[in-house]
Amino acid sequence: MCRIRFFLMCSLLGASLLLPVDYYNESDLPTRREYSMDAFTISNITRGSNKLWVHFSCLWCISFYALFLLHKEYKEILVIRLQQMKELRHRADQFTVLVRQVPLCPEHNTRGCAVDHFFSKHHRFSYHSHQMLYDGRDLEYLLGKQKKLKKELEDKRHTEILSNGSQEHKQISTSEEKLREITHMIYHLQSETMLREKELPVAFVTFKSRRNAALAAQTQQHSNPLELITEMAPEPRDVSWRNLAIPQKILPLNKIGVILAAALLTIFFAIPVTAVQGIAKYEKLKKWFPPAMAIEFIPGLSSVVTGYLPSAILKGFMYIIPFAMLGLAYLGGSISNSKEEIKACNMVFYFLMGNVFFLSLISGSLLDEIGEYLTHPRDIPSHLAAAVSAQAEFFMTYILTDGLSGFSLEILQLGLILFDIIRSYTYGRGKERTPYLFSFPYFRVIPTVSLSIMIGMIYAVVAPLMLPFLVGYFCLGYIVYFNQMEDVYETTYDTCGRFWPFIHHYIFVSIILMQITMVGLFGLKSKPSAAIATVPLILITIAYNEYCKIRFLPSFKHFPIQTAVEIDEEDEKNGEMETHYVDAATAYNRHQPCLERVSSAESPTNLSQPLLGTDSI
Amino acid sequence: MCRIRFFLMCSLLGASLLLPVDYYNESDLPTRREYSMDAFTISNITRGSNKLWVHFSCLWCISFYALFLLHKEYKEILVIRLQQMKELRHRADQFTVLVRQVPLCPEHNTRGCAVDHFFSKHHRFSYHSHQMLYDGRDLEYLLGKQKKLKKELEDKRHTEILSNGSQEHKQISTSEEKLREITHMIYHLQSETMLREKELPVAFVTFKSRRNAALAAQTQQHSNPLELITEMAPEPRDVSWRNLAIPQKILPLNKIGVILAAALLTIFFAIPVTAVQGIAKYEKLKKWFPPAMAIEFIPGLSSVVTGYLPSAILKGFMYIIPFAMLGLAYLGGSISNSKEEIKACNMVFYFLMGNVFFLSLISGSLLDEIGEYLTHPRDIPSHLAAAVSAQAEFFMTYILTDGLSGFSLEILQLGLILFDIIRSYTYGRGKERTPYLFSFPYFRVIPTVSLSIMIGMIYAVVAPLMLPFLVGYFCLGYIVYFNQMEDVYETTYDTCGRFWPFIHHYIFVSIILMQITMVGLFGLKSKPSAAIATVPLILITIAYNEYCKIRFLPSFKHFPIQTAVEIDEEDEKNGEMETHYVDAATAYNRHQPCLERVSSAESPTNLSQPLLGTDSI
Repeated sequence: MCRIRFFLMCSLLGASLLLPVDYYNESDLPTRREYSMDAFTISNITRGSNKLWVHFSCLWCISFYALFLLHKEYKEILVIRLQQMKELRHRADQFTVLVRQVPLCPEHNTRGCAVDHFFSKHHRFSYHSHQMLYDGRDLEYLLGKQKKLKKELEDKRHTEILSNGSQEHKQISTSEEKLREITHMIYHLQSETMLREKELPVAFVTFKSRRNAALAAQTQQHSNPLELITEMAPEPRDVSWRNLAIPQKILPLNKIGVILAAALLTIFFAIPVTAVQGIAKYEKLKKWFPPAMAIEFIPGLSSVVTGYLPSAILKGFMYIIPFAMLGLAYLGGSISNSKEEIKACNMVFYFLMGNVFFLSLISGSLLDEIGEYLTHPRDIPSHLAAAVSAQAEFFMTYILTDGLSGFSLEILQLGLILFDIIRSYTYGRGKERTPYLFSFPYFRVIPTVSLSIMIGMIYAVVAPLMLPFLVGYFCLGYIVYFNQMEDVYETTYDTCGRFWPFIHHYIFVSIILMQITMVGLFGLKSKPSAAIATVPLILITIAYNEYCKIRFLPSFKHFPIQTAVEIDEEDEKNGEMETHYVDAATAYNRHQPCLERVSSAESPTNLSQPLLGTDSI
Repeated sequence: MCRIRFFLMCSLLGASLLLPVDYYNESDLPTRREYSMDAFTISNITRGSNKLWVHFSCLWCISFYALFLLHKEYKEILVIRLQQMKELRHRADQFTVLVRQVPLCPEHNTRGCAVDHFFSKHHRFSYHSHQMLYDGRDLEYLLGKQKKLKKELEDKRHTEILSNGSQEHKQISTSEEKLREITHMIYHLQSETMLREKELPVAFVTFKSRRNAALAAQTQQHSNPLELITEMAPEPRDVSWRNLAIPQKILPLNKIGVILAAALLTIFFAIPVTAVQGIAKYEKLKKWFPPAMAIEFIPGLSSVVTGYLPSAILKGFMYIIPFAMLGLAYLGGSISNSKEEIKACNMVFYFLMGNVFFLSLISGSLLDEIGEYLTHPRDIPSHLAAAVSAQAEFFMTYILTDGLSGFSLEILQLGLILFDIIRSYTYGRGKERTPYLFSFPYFRVIPTVSLSIMIGMIYAVVAPLMLPFLVGYFCLGYIVYFNQMEDVYETTYDTCGRFWPFIHHYIFVSIILMQITMVGLFGLKSKPSAAIATVPLILITIAYNEYCKIRFLPSFKHFPIQTAVEIDEEDEKNGEMETHYVDAATAYNRHQPCLERVSSAESPTNLSQPLLGTDSI
């Protein structure tokens, strides 16, 4: 639901941006050509200087309308989020608190005991039970091995039935012996006493009501705030088990490392790409890879290659970036996959802003430009304004090509098809293929769409004729993604709209950039009074953003007590409360990869009758 | 207790600063004269360039020792804070949560009802009662009037007894009539139905245990985070009643306004002071105020006046600043007096840092220098280093004079004596005087002492011979303030060590400034390797500060559940739990100025027998 609204919002914004177009036509202002074609034509506007005041009022109108829409949308999404939480009453995470940095119990020398002691003492009437996290690397390895053996055994039995040889029978019995041994080991390691030694200082604590879970999650438990850190648990299927095993002490290093890596990637991305593009030019290609000369014999092909190859390489790099960022975000140690995706989403957005938007605007490398901006921060608006007006045509092309190519790629799922073809002809040859179901790639889609919103915002006043194209883009996007979400992708987790505050922030950044650009433009047109009069607008926009942060954001981060009690009451009315929290008390252990139960068919007792067990496999 | 430790800490730090002095004597390094006298002598050091590495290791040692001491002290103060909270078990604020932005109850159209509904629904088993805040301006006016009348009546009765005239008797009866009327009005206005109309959206909610109060204070109650905002209530005697009446909506404006005003005062302070000082010069004084010529006739006096007057004016301005900042902080809308003082403390510290430390270092006005620093941020360290080495003597004098004059002023309580003399001879003439008991002026003392710590820190490596003077200063300060706190000042509130994190921050700023100065000094000595090797030290110090923020600060802001439960258990053991929370349930109404009960002697029933009432007055 929230996903759909996001695109509705985009098209709404798009529609709002149409406003100035109508306005311009009515008041026969200079048309787009005069504004955007190149830096020279802008000087024409100076002739009719009072017309800039029309721009000025336009800027204020668009800014306020955008803020109004953002506010409306934030409010509505919050309502939908709370509704959705009520609908997801059965979810284990509403009853569960993630506790990190669990100390060792001095008496029993286990962490599970410490959790139990602490919560049964400090939350006497509301604490239900806890589930510990275990260091399950050995177990996971054994489980993987067991699965592989089982498959082999099955294959061998299959061939045995066909050939009926004694050789195969002997092999099967040794394999069965091995399997029985591993299963036994797994059983042994999964026993309570063995697991106790592998405890990590992380626990999922289940409470008897949502209210109590919400209370415990938002408060400081221990007088040392670095012990027993509580927060709302993510959904069981959304938990990033591997990241939870990272010690809390080195987490800050991970986070700083990831931010640094992403920043470096964003700043220095242009260098390797330009280098590879250079090599891919036909002249150099001939030098490095002589067989490429064959292209010359087919008429027309060489021009296609020279024209297409460098841009294809750029596109290829761009296509990889979201996945690279997702990999980086994974190293950041987020507690859930959804938080990882949100992080990746942020990094990709700022990457696109730097390497598509700013790099297209400026001459020279991004690094040079950043250095320039840092030493002369006052010149930013005028630089920006000059570059923006000069690049309008480029971005129009960008919106058209990116829209068409991006959406068609999305529908074709070209990457996935290629990957699947390669796999089925190489290492996965002959294997039974599992259907590949993926979740919607928010970290790839949201930044791209946000970039289009940003371009639309910035050009809304400068070159409003770009807006019809954008509206077309958003309409097409709405149809494509609606279809994809309904039929192609699978839901792997539900964040209840946690992505929205970030999209809101991207749009806020776009509005601020638009205003700064206009300050620069008024400055270039030697209209200092208009430039100065725009500064309050920027301040208002920032103040509005701060207001949104305190008005809406907390409800996206915390579980408000009011909502928790409302859902609790509904559950009590239906008499489902106990079912839900008893279910939550085992949900995380059920999902923990190292605690995966071996199917009853392979339990040691059954293994003594191997042939009986075979039937059920 | 916490107060004493603060000064202990100061002397400890002072002692630690002695370290490099010993060190220097042993390794016959260039003595202080070579370092600090003026910018020229520093160049001498360049001759023995490997000696700078001694400075370098000294810098690291001092930094780490200071960080170690800070950490130790923070930890100890936290322990003392938690102990103190256990000792203050009877305090009402441990059971009470301050709720702001209470909505109107749609049924009964009152706010008190909304609070009651919300908390009895969402904290069913733990909610005890609530106390509303009322808009009591009329009532306070009447109460003031009543008090005045009572005093008048008493005076008249006194004269009646002496003169026994009928004229007085008539006057007394009219006064009594008036008093009765006012008391009746107060009774009427203090009735429940009348108060209900004056409700403000602020309530004090009392819980049945500290644990539940702590849980409610730290969580988001309403799904709209701007409604029913909860936080731990301040002590009843510490509540700033007038500030709580300020609508939440305009609070951000107040805060921004106060910050702006304090910043402007800090930056532009030098201008009026220099102007007034200019006028106060004898030559100009003669022009503006001819009677001043009389000074010339007394031999020697003129030189005293010319030498002393400008500096006395500066001191006078400096003396007023803390009170001005306290006044500003009062406008900032803090919920308690202690928070106001903390705010004032911050503002005074940065004021002193700007107008005593930096203004003494730099030539020209602070404004010029700030502009210079903003445009060339890279030159800050070298500028600082050159200025610091040149001004060592000045600061030594400053420490000596400020120490002696400041401490003697503190003991003499000159301001208070002057104020009292003026009062007793003007408007307060003949009135019975109440003894003036004030609380310890943290907002004045802490910044001054912190400034001395800062000077000591910065000069610890550059001019270590300043340190013995500083140790003397701290020892004297310890004796003086110990005496003052024991015998002179009254405790008006107990924050349980909430001032410490701010003092910690001032010392942290000092350490950072010391390191930046040293970077500049190594740069000046063309030792870039040492300068670069100091940068990691700065990063370590910043990281350490961030660590302290997450390790200790939360326990100073929140009431940890663990501590709350511990105190609860102790109370339950003693069977005092109910006494305490029942007491807390009325504590805030008892302290609310507009709900002050008129003494039973003046209750309407008693007023019908005025003569009987007179006896008890």
